[in-house]
Amino acid sequence: MTIFDELESEVRSYCRSWPVVFDTAIGSRLTDVDGNSYLDFFAGAGTLNYGHNPPALKKPLIDYLQRDGVTHGLDIHTTAKAEFLQTFREVVLEPRGLDYKVQFPGPTGANAVESALKLARKITGREAVINFTNAFHGMTLGALSVTGNSMKRGGAGVPLVHATPMPYDNYFDGTVPDFLWFERVLDDQGSSLNDPAAVIVETVQGEGGVNPARAEWLHGLAELCKRHGILLIVDDVQMGIGRTGPFFSFEFADIQPDIVCLSKSISGYGLPMALVLMKREHDEWDPGEHNGTFRGNNPAFVTATAALREYWTDDMLEKGTIAKGERIEEHLSRLAEAASPLELTPKGRGLARGLAFGQAELAGKACTAAFERGLLMETAGPCDEVMKLMPPLTMTEDELDEGLAIVTDAVHCVATGA
Amino acid sequence: MTIFDELESEVRSYCRSWPVVFDTAIGSRLTDVDGNSYLDFFAGAGTLNYGHNPPALKKPLIDYLQRDGVTHGLDIHTTAKAEFLQTFREVVLEPRGLDYKVQFPGPTGANAVESALKLARKITGREAVINFTNAFHGMTLGALSVTGNSMKRGGAGVPLVHATPMPYDNYFDGTVPDFLWFERVLDDQGSSLNDPAAVIVETVQGEGGVNPARAEWLHGLAELCKRHGILLIVDDVQMGIGRTGPFFSFEFADIQPDIVCLSKSISGYGLPMALVLMKREHDEWDPGEHNGTFRGNNPAFVTATAALREYWTDDMLEKGTIAKGERIEEHLSRLAEAASPLELTPKGRGLARGLAFGQAELAGKACTAAFERGLLMETAGPCDEVMKLMPPLTMTEDELDEGLAIVTDAVHCVATGA
Amino acid sequence: MTIFDELESEVRSYCRSWPVVFDTAIGSRLTDVDGNSYLDFFAGAGTLNYGHNPPALKKPLIDYLQRDGVTHGLDIHTTAKAEFLQTFREVVLEPRGLDYKVQFPGPTGANAVESALKLARKITGREAVINFTNAFHGMTLGALSVTGNSMKRGGAGVPLVHATPMPYDNYFDGTVPDFLWFERVLDDQGSSLNDPAAVIVETVQGEGGVNPARAEWLHGLAELCKRHGILLIVDDVQMGIGRTGPFFSFEFADIQPDIVCLSKSISGYGLPMALVLMKREHDEWDPGEHNGTFRGNNPAFVTATAALREYWTDDMLEKGTIAKGERIEEHLSRLAEAASPLELTPKGRGLARGLAFGQAELAGKACTAAFERGLLMETAGPCDEVMKLMPPLTMTEDELDEGLAIVTDAVHCVATGA
Amino acid sequence: MTIFDELESEVRSYCRSWPVVFDTAIGSRLTDVDGNSYLDFFAGAGTLNYGHNPPALKKPLIDYLQRDGVTHGLDIHTTAKAEFLQTFREVVLEPRGLDYKVQFPGPTGANAVESALKLARKITGREAVINFTNAFHGMTLGALSVTGNSMKRGGAGVPLVHATPMPYDNYFDGTVPDFLWFERVLDDQGSSLNDPAAVIVETVQGEGGVNPARAEWLHGLAELCKRHGILLIVDDVQMGIGRTGPFFSFEFADIQPDIVCLSKSISGYGLPMALVLMKREHDEWDPGEHNGTFRGNNPAFVTATAALREYWTDDMLEKGTIAKGERIEEHLSRLAEAASPLELTPKGRGLARGLAFGQAELAGKACTAAFERGLLMETAGPCDEVMKLMPPLTMTEDELDEGLAIVTDAVHCVATGA
Repeated sequence: MTIFDELESEVRSYCRSWPVVFDTAIGSRLTDVDGNSYLDFFAGAGTLNYGHNPPALKKPLIDYLQRDGVTHGLDIHTTAKAEFLQTFREVVLEPRGLDYKVQFPGPTGANAVESALKLARKITGREAVINFTNAFHGMTLGALSVTGNSMKRGGAGVPLVHATPMPYDNYFDGTVPDFLWFERVLDDQGSSLNDPAAVIVETVQGEGGVNPARAEWLHGLAELCKRHGILLIVDDVQMGIGRTGPFFSFEFADIQPDIVCLSKSISGYGLPMALVLMKREHDEWDPGEHNGTFRGNNPAFVTATAALREYWTDDMLEKGTIAKGERIEEHLSRLAEAASPLELTPKGRGLARGLAFGQAELAGKACTAAFERGLLMETAGPCDEVMKLMPPLTMTEDELDEGLAIVTDAVHCVATGA
Repeated sequence: MTIFDELESEVRSYCRSWPVVFDTAIGSRLTDVDGNSYLDFFAGAGTLNYGHNPPALKKPLIDYLQRDGVTHGLDIHTTAKAEFLQTFREVVLEPRGLDYKVQFPGPTGANAVESALKLARKITGREAVINFTNAFHGMTLGALSVTGNSMKRGGAGVPLVHATPMPYDNYFDGTVPDFLWFERVLDDQGSSLNDPAAVIVETVQGEGGVNPARAEWLHGLAELCKRHGILLIVDDVQMGIGRTGPFFSFEFADIQPDIVCLSKSISGYGLPMALVLMKREHDEWDPGEHNGTFRGNNPAFVTATAALREYWTDDMLEKGTIAKGERIEEHLSRLAEAASPLELTPKGRGLARGLAFGQAELAGKACTAAFERGLLMETAGPCDEVMKLMPPLTMTEDELDEGLAIVTDAVHCVATGA
Repeated sequence: MTIFDELESEVRSYCRSWPVVFDTAIGSRLTDVDGNSYLDFFAGAGTLNYGHNPPALKKPLIDYLQRDGVTHGLDIHTTAKAEFLQTFREVVLEPRGLDYKVQFPGPTGANAVESALKLARKITGREAVINFTNAFHGMTLGALSVTGNSMKRGGAGVPLVHATPMPYDNYFDGTVPDFLWFERVLDDQGSSLNDPAAVIVETVQGEGGVNPARAEWLHGLAELCKRHGILLIVDDVQMGIGRTGPFFSFEFADIQPDIVCLSKSISGYGLPMALVLMKREHDEWDPGEHNGTFRGNNPAFVTATAALREYWTDDMLEKGTIAKGERIEEHLSRLAEAASPLELTPKGRGLARGLAFGQAELAGKACTAAFERGLLMETAGPCDEVMKLMPPLTMTEDELDEGLAIVTDAVHCVATGA
Repeated sequence: MTIFDELESEVRSYCRSWPVVFDTAIGSRLTDVDGNSYLDFFAGAGTLNYGHNPPALKKPLIDYLQRDGVTHGLDIHTTAKAEFLQTFREVVLEPRGLDYKVQFPGPTGANAVESALKLARKITGREAVINFTNAFHGMTLGALSVTGNSMKRGGAGVPLVHATPMPYDNYFDGTVPDFLWFERVLDDQGSSLNDPAAVIVETVQGEGGVNPARAEWLHGLAELCKRHGILLIVDDVQMGIGRTGPFFSFEFADIQPDIVCLSKSISGYGLPMALVLMKREHDEWDPGEHNGTFRGNNPAFVTATAALREYWTDDMLEKGTIAKGERIEEHLSRLAEAASPLELTPKGRGLARGLAFGQAELAGKACTAAFERGLLMETAGPCDEVMKLMPPLTMTEDELDEGLAIVTDAVHCVATGA
């Protein structure tokens, strides 16, 4: 491990929590160079919804490489891209009645967010945007300006302006009517709020602490945007592709965002890829107005196509996700009850789950204890006060139970050791 | 091709010039779905310096996938990353006496640029930066603010501030002393120039029109930065990894930038990957202060390692690049002379070459004519007035001659008004 | 009047409501060129708290001019300035136990606000500020960025950033606890609120609709600022100098702001003058760091000194203001009751009073009707829905009653649909 | 003087150079409380072009106050304003064939500049502006963003953006063609210069070091602006109203700016007043879009009217200014020759004159020596390297000679004492 200490920048972070060298991975497990196995409740921060190296995707990927399919394509037409687009239309858009155009920005979530913000500003001719408390949208300057975390914002080195935060759902524990502040400042010509081009929102805030927004809140937000001529951008980078059950996390709220950002699990194999979806009437881009070298990562198109065919032509994955999510919720609720002095609060939706600790620092300690017991987990929330449970959607029930048992163990260990 | 027209956003661009569907690619040639073959003078805009799907990289890549090596790693330690870091140190840094730390930002050049700008601002506590006329650094908001092209800047939708342009080398055709304006405003406490944190520069401007900076200009720039406590960032995303001959494009100027951005050809296989190199004393990052989901694209680490071993343990590639570059230069000079009414100007260095047209619109027409003859080329420059010749560094001399013959043909075709 | 139409810019506004040419003015009355007399419920938008051309100030002013006292002084020492400073210390600061240093910025309220914001940013090293809904602080770029009115903000021509609005007192009619949102985003490290240097607040919002903040709200705000290391700036440009009763409008809330902006009535004679007061420990200015040509308007110092001696060495003015304010309040309450279909709401404190109309456009009509009856009044509020009553503090009771009778008349006239 | 030390903010500056308390002033002389007399080569930084308390203005001013003319008028119509407008049209605009509309912004130069920038942005829909090296336009945030001095810019506390500096005339001592850089970046679609709404320029830079722009440079600038659809704003706050000879300082270059800012000497008596002049077709303001409490300082209108009548109905003042300016120039040239080791450089035009020192710090010392000899002078330039000679235009030749003798004396004193 010397090489990492000697050569890699101090900016590295996850490796500090898990000080081993990983070698191989399959399904819900990783193996380190010493042959130790780790169960994965992290899933590449939501990138590995189908687990590591899923065989149904691995084979077409290797076949594609073997036959020298175009690897790097910018935005040229390729067979791999054509197949992806056709499959995406057939499997995703048409069954849901969504008439979106598809943009391939650079292959990261931040790039999708940057594109979405640019497009919204172009369409409306306004520069301001609304974000929410504890939002996370990425680290490039445009995406960072709508991200909440003060440490990460501080890294910008320039004032982050043009965005104004609004309270996310449940920010006041239900004591204040939804959108009271937001709608009031929009309606008030003297509020000093700059007219917003767009609202950008996550349906469940992952990094922000696994905070789920309710369907009625999201629906209300969509209505409010419509009334005020504001575009609604859903950042579905982490919560999309089935993480909460349905393909798009916003489906349960019965809304159709103007713009949708996808990345992370879209390729299904952990390969960099991102999409921006926009309502057909909003496709006001000029050719080349936004570009990027790796927007045509064709191996990712191949695995993305295979993933859609494997997992999204029936509702088994969605149902399994919801069922497993409930299984976790029940487990965490019992645990919270059993360990009541810790003031634990289960949170989340589908397989995006969190366990908030009354004492913030215990969450990190519990994650460390979990790692020592062979389970990978990270914390979330503004004070890292939440243990985040994001297993692959394809995790077996036995693995899930194994992981939950470790969570219980880790929490008890923290409870007694505290 | 209907699917692209129907479903893909209007933002797509290259596919408009090359309206075919590509399927496979190897070395310096692509093949479309109808079996037509195309010679590549484009090389993925500098991403495919070793050509398409180079066998020496393909095998370890497929092996890695076959044995279920970790694919997606964020910044966890993996064997693939360790091997890359060791190889990079051995093959690249140590022989050149460079003591850089290595950051893995998100896997795109823009992300490397965003990181570099953040870091420079953090180190210096200043927010302003200096960029150069006709620079290209990327499409995310921070990178776009230092990019020159007015159409792309217009896409930002917010005023792009914090950067002030300075004239690039040869901007006034040698009639004005180097850095006359730049140094004057730095020295003048009344100039209204905000104190810059950093200068960001390309050694050859690719998108900007294949404009090479001279060694003495780059050296002078490095000295000027040093005198004024300004950090020097070289964006070597397109010109690094051997495009102009040496591994780093700045080696010929005998300078050591404070920060270096690499991407495009670093993985060697067209897979998304990027690096930020910073002098050891500049590694002031806090853990996690900049992050990104795809910063650990391990298949790219595997091919990057293989590429370093295959191409950079001796000087054959570098010498070949310089020789082929001179071959192109001679060819273009003869062509310019022969077609003197077109006012052609050969430009560039190494295998980054351009042919500027007196009448801007003819460059595009010549590229179209080249495509019709089976050669892929793009234009560059603020008015798209330059045919850009960027073949894979590994192109054979026969292929090179074949391509140059087509260029000649295309230029004559345009000359005769067809 | 032709000359105004022909030569003066379209930006002019008050003259459109009062299309006559005024010639002389004394006390609470103006006279136009045709000899018509107008009672003044406007007082130069708060600049003429002692009425027009008060004799007790006029004499020393003319004496000073007669004897060729220094007129224009920048920030040189003059006898007029020395006398003002001594008197200000004796009459204003010492009796109130205030240890402020005094800055003479340019002679307008906006300039005082610009200075205050600069100073707060310098002291704290932060760039963000908090303003309130419906605030008015001036038209220069820094002051405008903390002003609420969307039309005026639109005039900036650049995005107004660096300020985030918070709800002013009573913004939700008491249904939400004070500072619920503000304190929550300050405490939340993930809120995305940039750390504020300062809060800028009016104790009664004049332009914003004559909205008074309660003592407990102001007190709570001061406490909140203290807890969070935020400087509290009170913009007392319109409400200071006795408009609400005490010399400083914030006295009743028992707070000591870090910085105070004064202008408008400070000279007492309508002459341009402004002050910034800052706690002694906050005087971190470097010499000349903020300046302005007219910061030493010595005739204004002369009248300001005379005004302090005339009106502020006992509590008669203060008591009179409070008594007259109550008289107005009673009158307006009765009027509101009598004209209940108009949904009138009396507002304000001291002699800053307003009458809000259920139908916004009627307020303007009532002001027009008042003008036709010889009374000068303007509207306020984001929709111009408030008749603003700001008579000179020195108005006699008879004049006050005369004016209130016209108000009643004007309201009835509007009520009957005329 | 204790009161100043004890109570006035550290921001004060001029009083540090002249540590006496001034009491009265008339013509070109001030008298302190101890009866010492000082000759004035400072003229209120250009505010007192007609000297202190000129009798021809004093009488109508006192008459106006005596008869209780309206003092404070916002933008209501008054007889004083009507007379000023009529006189300004008759005496200034019509004889020069200028069809400007007149705006009364707040009563300071900075406010005029803020208005001008807003208006230019509104007209063009662009946000960027061009300023010049060593420009001075004021201390409010908009005006400061186009001001050069780094200390003053640092006081902003926020990054000053939206303006890009260009080299002022003679910035490279004539070695570079005029506008080489400026026009090149305007023409180059890849320069990264944001399209400017306006250029703001002084015809002689006062604070910047008494740098005169040549007629052909100004003319070239006006042509360049026209070609590129950029509005030309001349900030004539310090150099207008006859300082360089003609009423407007730009007349000698035969240009008609789109927008002109006037302040300082426009009232003629040192009273705060400012004007923005705009070509009739550019008057796109909405009513009230820019306002300010003291935009109707009627006593200033009275003295302004009297000054126009007194000094601008014939060409005597203009001729006298030019003649006296030449007298100074000759004197300074001889002085420079005589004191050649000091490397003195005479600069300026009309009665805006400077003497630059090879060793910057000697300029301040010479000013101190001048003060000790009874002459008021300030320094200018980015390093305070210039003694600034700005006597009242009405100074007698004897006084001028007296002052110049002191300058010579002070310079010699510094030369020997150095």
